Amino acid sequence: MEYNPFHNGHLYHLQKAKELIEPDVTIAVMSGNFVQRGEPAIIDKYARTEIALEAGIDLVIQLPLVYSIQDAGGFALGSVWTLNLLKVSDIVFGSETNNLRLLKTLADVIVKEPREYIDRLKTHLKSGISFPNARKYALRDYLTMNLPGEDLDVEEAGSSNNILGLEYLVAIEKLKSKIVPHTIKRLGANYNDPQFKGSFSSATAVRGMILKGSKERLSEVLPPFSYEVVLKEIRDKGPVTLESMDKLLMGILRTMDRDDFKRYYGFVEGLDRRFADCSEATGNINDFFECVKTKRFTFTRIKRLVMNLLFKLTDDVVKNSWKYGPQYIRVLGFNEKGREYLSSIKRKLELPLITVPSHGKNLSRIASYEGVTLEIFLQQFSRDLKEAAVHSLFYERGSCNLEYRKRVIYKRS
Amino acid sequence: MEYNPFHNGHLYHLQKAKELIEPDVTIAVMSGNFVQRGEPAIIDKYARTEIALEAGIDLVIQLPLVYSIQDAGGFALGSVWTLNLLKVSDIVFGSETNNLRLLKTLADVIVKEPREYIDRLKTHLKSGISFPNARKYALRDYLTMNLPGEDLDVEEAGSSNNILGLEYLVAIEKLKSKIVPHTIKRLGANYNDPQFKGSFSSATAVRGMILKGSKERLSEVLPPFSYEVVLKEIRDKGPVTLESMDKLLMGILRTMDRDDFKRYYGFVEGLDRRFADCSEATGNINDFFECVKTKRFTFTRIKRLVMNLLFKLTDDVVKNSWKYGPQYIRVLGFNEKGREYLSSIKRKLELPLITVPSHGKNLSRIASYEGVTLEIFLQQFSRDLKEAAVHSLFYERGSCNLEYRKRVIYKRS
Repeated sequence: MEYNPFHNGHLYHLQKAKELIEPDVTIAVMSGNFVQRGEPAIIDKYARTEIALEAGIDLVIQLPLVYSIQDAGGFALGSVWTLNLLKVSDIVFGSETNNLRLLKTLADVIVKEPREYIDRLKTHLKSGISFPNARKYALRDYLTMNLPGEDLDVEEAGSSNNILGLEYLVAIEKLKSKIVPHTIKRLGANYNDPQFKGSFSSATAVRGMILKGSKERLSEVLPPFSYEVVLKEIRDKGPVTLESMDKLLMGILRTMDRDDFKRYYGFVEGLDRRFADCSEATGNINDFFECVKTKRFTFTRIKRLVMNLLFKLTDDVVKNSWKYGPQYIRVLGFNEKGREYLSSIKRKLELPLITVPSHGKNLSRIASYEGVTLEIFLQQFSRDLKEAAVHSLFYERGSCNLEYRKRVIYKRS
Repeated sequence: MEYNPFHNGHLYHLQKAKELIEPDVTIAVMSGNFVQRGEPAIIDKYARTEIALEAGIDLVIQLPLVYSIQDAGGFALGSVWTLNLLKVSDIVFGSETNNLRLLKTLADVIVKEPREYIDRLKTHLKSGISFPNARKYALRDYLTMNLPGEDLDVEEAGSSNNILGLEYLVAIEKLKSKIVPHTIKRLGANYNDPQFKGSFSSATAVRGMILKGSKERLSEVLPPFSYEVVLKEIRDKGPVTLESMDKLLMGILRTMDRDDFKRYYGFVEGLDRRFADCSEATGNINDFFECVKTKRFTFTRIKRLVMNLLFKLTDDVVKNSWKYGPQYIRVLGFNEKGREYLSSIKRKLELPLITVPSHGKNLSRIASYEGVTLEIFLQQFSRDLKEAAVHSLFYERGSCNLEYRKRVIYKRS
């Protein structure tokens, strides 16, 4: 989840999911202050937690930054891993297709990597298209060759919400998790559609309304409890955008050593040279993205790479997290039910529960948990502190970083 | 020299120096886009070179960044070393005291470090005052004890322009250079005096006038050829200030690992912890400076440390440069006389002359010079490229970095 910000589509999904599962407790693993698009969240994670609790989520957990700003695969891996650690039984994701059988078939191919599939993937990648597209075509080719009678619309599976759903299934399979996946067909707008579409709008469109100050439209696409908090946050702190971070990001790019880019996760296939050249050839961050962009490298991928530089996500840090998983459960908020659930599983947890960031300083306690490798804990946790420190820098009046003084949000009924 | 910007006081110094020495050729070693106060130059080095050539300098050389943003000792060492490499015979610096005998005596103590002096220095440092002040008092104590009849006003020697002059003498002695030092008493304002003082104003006061847009006053304190270029630069690019770099600097501070500060030059005596704490406790760069400031650590020292972080001047990089000296002669501009002088010494130079930045890419040529250690060359030269890249980012409309396309400014008579 990102809830960036929480809109009518999110509420619809939440209500349908509850109808479907009738859960004892509802948990959201949510991005913190930086999201999967490689951008800052438009309002901070505490405000978004408050809204999620109002919406009927019982427990809000922060997905560590090292997973939240990666591609769908990394995002889903971190999310499912966290849910697994939290002993969750079911997961419900939105998708365009609502065809779980198709998605499971595709996930199986992705995890098992049969030779024909890999060959097709390489062929498509060689043509210079992006990885998500190459994978979509390779899956289509593979299914056509191997499962001709299945009548599976692979084209459809390539849309961004299906990709994320697919990656949840891949993660469940990789982790050999017992979590049961479900999917709900999304209503209304396409994820990336910037156009206003009645009372269901994409988060992209909603952020556009916030930036334009279109309050009336906003009141139509956000539930009242979300609308109220969003307006307050924008009034007090202003929206945080990639554009507002222009000088910081360009400054970081321009002070990098040419040879240094390669140390960071994802700088493959000459991206280091493109980054170095484009940072000199352009004068602002949007021009920079345009300069680096090719058919192969999408804007989102480039933005995520810039975030990897900003937060010093080197190759080893990211790969450690892929391999060893989350090293803590950062609790952002709960209601009575969520709190009770946490108490009930606390003894069984292999990882520390962090409800107050300053608990992360108690390293001997942290190291006492079976599931923790202290070095990796520090790699992950220090980035979560940094993302709060950077986000708060871009509030209207600049702000000191109060992360260490924050407490979990407890919504009493 | 910094010429930030070139004012009537600089012109006076230049004219007096020429009267004193009657030189065949006049050379200025000038800071590039970042200066000794730990700040960006208000207008760029090319504009400042143009003005210097108009003023009657024959040859303008850039002091590498690794020296230009250090304390008076580092700045003077880099400058004198460069002049020495250029086979210069005389150096003329401005001072408040005009007492060369006093300054030479002090320089001698500083270089030879007699035990009594070092003991006094330690005692004063222990009281928590800044290094420049502790050194001033230690020198006073030492001279009082050892040269009571000399009647030397050490107090006077502690003013900022005397400190720089003193450091030129120290550098000459350390390098065993044959350059003959001369000094000229400064007229008019004290270096740091922000008040307007008739037609002689400090560079600090002049920058204040620029930021306030006080054109009339500016026209009184700048020679006409400087006034004209300054106005054009401010109109086209705007002034570059530390404040305009706020988000970049705060962002760099907030994304540093706590343990990482110590890798950079000058982070001694718990400054790393102060930096980490203050970057969280404050929301903008001026508040940050206030937060870190103590009796021991002056604003200027703190600003220089921030520049060390921005330009990744690690301890080893700076110390290599102290030890091995400048690795190239970067020529920013010359007139006919300056050009002829360069031709005349070119064969005898142990270092490459860089008149076009792209020459710095030809590493096999660079490595062929006797005086060059390629690793240190790259450490120095890459920082000079970065300082241009960062400075140009803060021009009014943001700007691509054209450093590689720049050529030496040739003022034909």
